[in-house]
Formats: sequence, structure tokens, C-alpha cells
Amino acid sequence: ALYRGLDSWDEVVGRIRGLHTDTLRKLASKCEDRFMAGQKDHLRFGTDSWSHFRLTTGKPCCEAGDAVYYTASYAKDPLVNYAIKICRSHVKETQQQFFHSLAVRQSLPLHFNIQQDCGHFLADVPTRLLPWEEEEEGEDETPAAGTVTTAGHLRSRVVVITREVPFQTVADFVREGVARHAHSPELYERQVCLLLLQLCSGLEHMKPYHVTHCDLRLENLLMVQCQPGASAASSAAGATCPARLIISNFSQAKQKSSLMAANPGTLRDQSRLAPEIITATQYRKCDEFQTGILIYEMLHRPNPFEETPELKEREYTWADLPPLPVRSLYSQGLQQLARLLLTVNPSERIQMSEARACLQCLLWGPREDLFQALGCSTVGPMSGATASQREATLQNWLDLKRTLMMIKFAERSMDSACSVSLEDWLCCQYLAFATTDSLSRVVHILQQP
Amino acid sequence: ALYRGLDSWDEVVGRIRGLHTDTLRKLASKCEDRFMAGQKDHLRFGTDSWSHFRLTTGKPCCEAGDAVYYTASYAKDPLVNYAIKICRSHVKETQQQFFHSLAVRQSLPLHFNIQQDCGHFLADVPTRLLPWEEEEEGEDETPAAGTVTTAGHLRSRVVVITREVPFQTVADFVREGVARHAHSPELYERQVCLLLLQLCSGLEHMKPYHVTHCDLRLENLLMVQCQPGASAASSAAGATCPARLIISNFSQAKQKSSLMAANPGTLRDQSRLAPEIITATQYRKCDEFQTGILIYEMLHRPNPFEETPELKEREYTWADLPPLPVRSLYSQGLQQLARLLLTVNPSERIQMSEARACLQCLLWGPREDLFQALGCSTVGPMSGATASQREATLQNWLDLKRTLMMIKFAERSMDSACSVSLEDWLCCQYLAFATTDSLSRVVHILQQP
Repeated sequence: ALYRGLDSWDEVVGRIRGLHTDTLRKLASKCEDRFMAGQKDHLRFGTDSWSHFRLTTGKPCCEAGDAVYYTASYAKDPLVNYAIKICRSHVKETQQQFFHSLAVRQSLPLHFNIQQDCGHFLADVPTRLLPWEEEEEGEDETPAAGTVTTAGHLRSRVVVITREVPFQTVADFVREGVARHAHSPELYERQVCLLLLQLCSGLEHMKPYHVTHCDLRLENLLMVQCQPGASAASSAAGATCPARLIISNFSQAKQKSSLMAANPGTLRDQSRLAPEIITATQYRKCDEFQTGILIYEMLHRPNPFEETPELKEREYTWADLPPLPVRSLYSQGLQQLARLLLTVNPSERIQMSEARACLQCLLWGPREDLFQALGCSTVGPMSGATASQREATLQNWLDLKRTLMMIKFAERSMDSACSVSLEDWLCCQYLAFATTDSLSRVVHILQQP
Repeated sequence: ALYRGLDSWDEVVGRIRGLHTDTLRKLASKCEDRFMAGQKDHLRFGTDSWSHFRLTTGKPCCEAGDAVYYTASYAKDPLVNYAIKICRSHVKETQQQFFHSLAVRQSLPLHFNIQQDCGHFLADVPTRLLPWEEEEEGEDETPAAGTVTTAGHLRSRVVVITREVPFQTVADFVREGVARHAHSPELYERQVCLLLLQLCSGLEHMKPYHVTHCDLRLENLLMVQCQPGASAASSAAGATCPARLIISNFSQAKQKSSLMAANPGTLRDQSRLAPEIITATQYRKCDEFQTGILIYEMLHRPNPFEETPELKEREYTWADLPPLPVRSLYSQGLQQLARLLLTVNPSERIQMSEARACLQCLLWGPREDLFQALGCSTVGPMSGATASQREATLQNWLDLKRTLMMIKFAERSMDSACSVSLEDWLCCQYLAFATTDSLSRVVHILQQP
């Protein structure tokens, strides 16, 4: 059947296009299986497994906003690395927040960019693993590798086991990136786009479950090696895609209860309240706003609302937001995206899925010169002929990009390492699901005056 | 530059076509590197290395026409398997033939389907490794694994070291294939095509060096595993491509001396002789003829000229050749190819390169239904419109097949084993270098009445 109609050129082109699209979708899903291998097995460690964990080194691998992480191995499966997350706060304050965040996280299905919990419990932790507390209490023990429950004073702490071992937070990445931003702005800002794209994908995944993180800060975003074997330092600095980003710390997260919707009584009561009064509705576009602030911070600019607190008091416009310096191909697009995300009126604020699409377009989409050829900068309605010519050009662009992506995968099959990078996967997702309509919409959003 | 001219559909199609072609060529050459890995290192074992070889088992791995093969390892590189080829005949008779075949083989550059020699010498071989001689002399020693020079009576024999360890000859394959040919004719005859294609590729490679093998028999063609790790039995029976084929035993080979051409005196003398008198010219199409006989034999039919020796006495036609039973999609094509190869007049006989192209077409080329759509069965000149429509259809077919091949390679990149099969490589070679002209020519040859 595949060879029928070979005399019609249009039919052949359509079939090749269909094959490319189907294959890219299949490849994207196989990539997901590969990058999330093991993670889909449902692991549950309880308190009884605590004594079977052994720290790989006595030093934390990552110090995040809400917790400190140690690399550890599990006696019954010693080849896999785990991270032990020890929550910073004292048990009483943590516990309640923790169980809240746990409930929120458990309502979300697995996602590549959202922290997964393989078990959590109250555990007795030696004080040498709580360096931030030592100062307070003036202890002076040198941390050393060893079974977590041996030696020293013990404190009761909330402990979480995760499979993804972070090597730094995005805050560390940004701090260490100051010099790189100055001498290789193209590379640094591209890396920022790749991290933001992953952030937006994770946040977009939460939308259908009515979850809002509400505490998006650089120190709550973790970075994890995604090619096993690559050393942390080399990969973060050199490769285009610095790492897998993981959204952590759901202690401030809000969730619109699904129970509420199911209960007709509550629904009737709420139906008479103004939308900004209902918590979940009020927080609906909060993550979008915070993502806008993160763009400033990742580009080494202060949060505009921390710098000028009075901004929030009035109906500020885009012109009131501080400009981002143009340092690379990506700066203007990121500036535009920040504005769209920081729009004062939440209903005019761009949606998370659109922000994700804008980042995909900045990374791999049609470039400035194609926009110009498409006449996108001219405002107002187009004539029918122009619109159809424009669609044809976008379709041509898409066909060519898909061919190049297929070639990339085909050539990977002959690599000795047979390695598909995280960026390949992310790009494949984009090309597999892009249409001329979606391209056109995003180009329009990014070109808004 | 790649994105210029995106408004012209023709230009985009041309560019995608060019990218596919270039990539397939690159992939074909990378496949060659992979399948011939190690073989391009120039190894030379001398008599002094003989005592460092150790047989893996005491039983031959393959018994060919001119020699018996044992699997062995070399003490200084124990992880690589070698084959030790022990020539059957007694030294005096062998030696001269051997040095002749050696000279011929050394004039040929490396090829995937031609036996490569990593060293050869006269060696003292224990009689237990010469089972065919035991009978003559009534010895009764049980063969056992061990260093080749230990124990038992020794005989001086010509020994060759090769990297490719044969597991059987094509004669064994054909003998064992009788039942398979009956119950899975499609699979068996496809395997025959794949072996014949490799045979023709090897023989085609010899043409520019004016070498004719002149002794193409099933027992001089060896079969070698090409996916390390696959067991001999499973792969030969189940996989589509049964094995890598290796042309061996060059003892009867003829070579038109390049010296002769360089010497103007000889050239002048020869210029007055009828072409059939000059040996090299006389043998020019001999391998083609023998390949035709092999088609009969591989399809479990006797050599027509052994069955009816008087055939050769007269100017036989295709009608005099016994018909091959139609058992699969491939039978008719193989019948046609056998006729073309057995044509009585050597100058009308098909060339090796054309035979190779016919086999590629049978294996992966456009099928009967496309031929019919192309109107190939009608003889006589076509109108201009039909010819151009026909070319367009072939181009469409080629574009589609190339897309499918690219997809296959792209999907291989996500396999855990990342394994490209020998058939993938052979098919990739075909699609990388096919043109509408070459397709058209082969279709015409195969459809000749």
C-alpha cells in the first residue's frame, strides 16, 4: 500500500512528510523511555531501609533552598546512585509543610522535570550531615563517608530518597556563569533558554492538575546530570544543554481541590465570589509571573520588583520594566518573553504552554530572516495569497528541519557511543509536534510590538 | 545558507533529496568502517608466530574445497579470533598454486567479500589436524585442543592465517537448506540473493585489476558471522542475511598482466591475434558464466552443463536452459539472471556489475506492480511524455525508499544494541548510489523477453 500512487508527486510528498512526523514522535517517545529509564519503576523506601543507605562521600553534592543533598548507594542495589535529601528546618516546622508538599506532588503523574520521591520518613541523622546547624551549636566534627546511622549525635529530620542526584542548583549555575555570560554570551544565554524550557515543561505538566508551585526561585531548581558517565563540571560548562532541570520544594504549592469541584454545594457557594477571591484562581498565573522574574535573574539582572517595589502598586506597562541588554541571538526573545510573563493583568499574561512554545521557537525555530521573509513584522490583516504563501514557506521550513533531525538520529546510530543528547530529545519533541499553525502563532507572539 | 530559498517548493525538495543522498553515502561508508573494523590494520604473521597460536577447539570450524579451517587465538592478542587455514594438498603440489594465488590476491585491494591473508608460511602441522589424511594412512588419534605444534606426528603444510573465521561453506548452506527451501521458499531464495549479491560485489571489485577467479564453486565460497556474538546456527537459519560471504581459493585465478600492456613489443605481437586466443581476454567473462551455474546449484538444481554436456557443443539459446521452478518472489528474477549470465556468446553475456545491480533490484528494487505501472513490459520506443512520467515515478519511488532507510537508521540509534545489520548496509549502498537512470536500466534488463 505504501507504494501505491507513486505517480503523484503530491501524494509522495505527503507520505514522506507523514513518515517523518510519525518517526519523530516515535523517537521522542523512545528518548523519553531512555532518559527516564528506571524511573518508571515504582520504588518505595521506608524507615527500615534507612540503615541500608551508605553515603558515597561525606560532603553534600548540592545545597538547595529547602534541603541538603548527599549522594548515596543502597546496599541491595549498589550500582545505582541515589540522593538523600535532608530537609533543613527542624522537624516540627518542616513536617507539616512536608506533608502538604508530599500530597501535592503525589497528585502529579511522573514528569522528567519534577522531583520524584522514592520514599520519605523521619530519620535520626548524625549532626555531621547537618553542617548548617553546626554553626548554631558550635560543634566541630569532620564529616566523613560512612553508613548514615553510625557515630556522632543524632537528630530527627525529615529525609527523602530520590533517584536524581543533583550536582548544583540553578542559583549555583547562575552565580558561576557570570564570567561565561560575559565572554560567551551566545552559549550562556542558549543554556538559559534550555533550562527555562525544561522549567516551563514541568510547570505546564502541572496545569491540568491545578497545581501552582508559587515558590519558583533559583535555589529551588536543581540540576542533574543526564548522561551517566559525564563529569559534572565538564558537562555544565561546555555542553550546550547544561543539565536536566528538576523542580523541587513544593512546600508553598497551591492546589485547587478536585473535591471542591465534585461537591455541588461548594460549587454553588463559590459561584457568587469574584474570581480573585478564590485562592486557586488567584494563583492561576502566579508561576508564569515568577518565571518572568527568573528570566531576569538568570540573565544576571535583579528582580525588577525587588529593585523598584513601587512598580507593583500601579498598573505598570512593559515600558516600566527594565530592559535586558542585548548580548546574543536570544536576548531580544527572552526580553519579549519576560514582558509577556510579567504582564500586570493575569488574564492578559501569556500562558505556560505558550511560554514553552516561545522558548522552543527561540532555540530551534525559524530565525529572524525567515520572519522578515514572511512579512511578520507588518501589522494588520494579510491578503489570502500572502497567507497561503506564508504557510507554504513555514511548511518548507518544517520539512527541511525534520529531515535534518532524522539525519542526526540516523548518524547517531553509527556513533560508537550511540548517544542521543538531552538537547536532541527536546528538539525532537518540538519538531514532532510543530505544525504550520503552531509555528505561525508563536512567531506572531514573539513579534508583538 | 541552508534556509535560503524556503519559499520555493522545488528548491526545498531538491535540497531534502540531496541531504538524503549525502547522508546515505556517509552512512554506507561508516557501515564499511564498522563491518571491516580491524581488518584495515595491516597484520603480517610470519613462521615465528606459529607457536603462539592456540586452537580454540580440536575440531575444524569449516571444511572448504582447498583447505580446512580451525578457530585459533593468538597469545599476544587473545580476545580476537583468527582462522588457521591448513591447505589440503601435499606441499609440493600446493606450493606452486599457492604462490600463484597469493600473487593474484595481493594485487587486489582489500574487499569485504575477498579472503584476506594475515600471513602464510610452511609449518609443521600435527597429523591430528589433518583428518582427511588419517584415512589414507590409517592413523587413529583423537583431535584435541592445544598448541598447534605439540604432540603427534608432524607434517609440513602450507598454513594461512586469516581474521575471518568461516563457520561453513556455501556448499554446506545449500545442503542444509533443502528443507528450508521447501517450507520457506521466500526466506531461502532471499538469502540466496543476498549471498549472490556479495559474490558479485567481490567479483566486480576484481575487474579493474583484470583478475578472473575461474573456479567459482560452492565449496570455495565461505560464510562468516558478521555480527559478533550471534551464534552461527541461529543466524544462518533465521536471519534474512545468512552471513558474510568470502571468496576463497584463488589457485585457478587468471590475471592479465599489467606488464604486458606496458611492454610495447608484446602489445604489438598481441594486436594481430584473435581475441579468443589471448588467455586473459578469453577468460574475461568466465566468472559471469560460473555465477550463472551457481544460481542453479544454490536453488537445488544441477549444473545444466553437467546434466546435458552436449549443450556446450552447439549455439544453445535460453530456451535450451532448464527452467527454474517458481517458488518465490525471487525465482523469476533469478531465472532471468541465470539466463543472462549463461548466454553462449561472451560479448552478449551480462557484465558482473549489471548482475550485481539486478540482484540489488530483486532484493530492494521496485516491484513487479511498479514495473507494470511504468509500462516496462511494452517493447519499443516510448513517447517523450511517457518517458518523463516514468522518470518522475522512479524518482518518487527512490525518494520514498530513501526516507524509509533514513528512518530505519534513525530508529536503530534508539536500540539498546544499536545494531545495524549487514542487510541494512547492503541496502544502504544500493539506495545511496541508485539514480533514476540506473533503476531504469536494470528494470529494462530484468524485463527483457
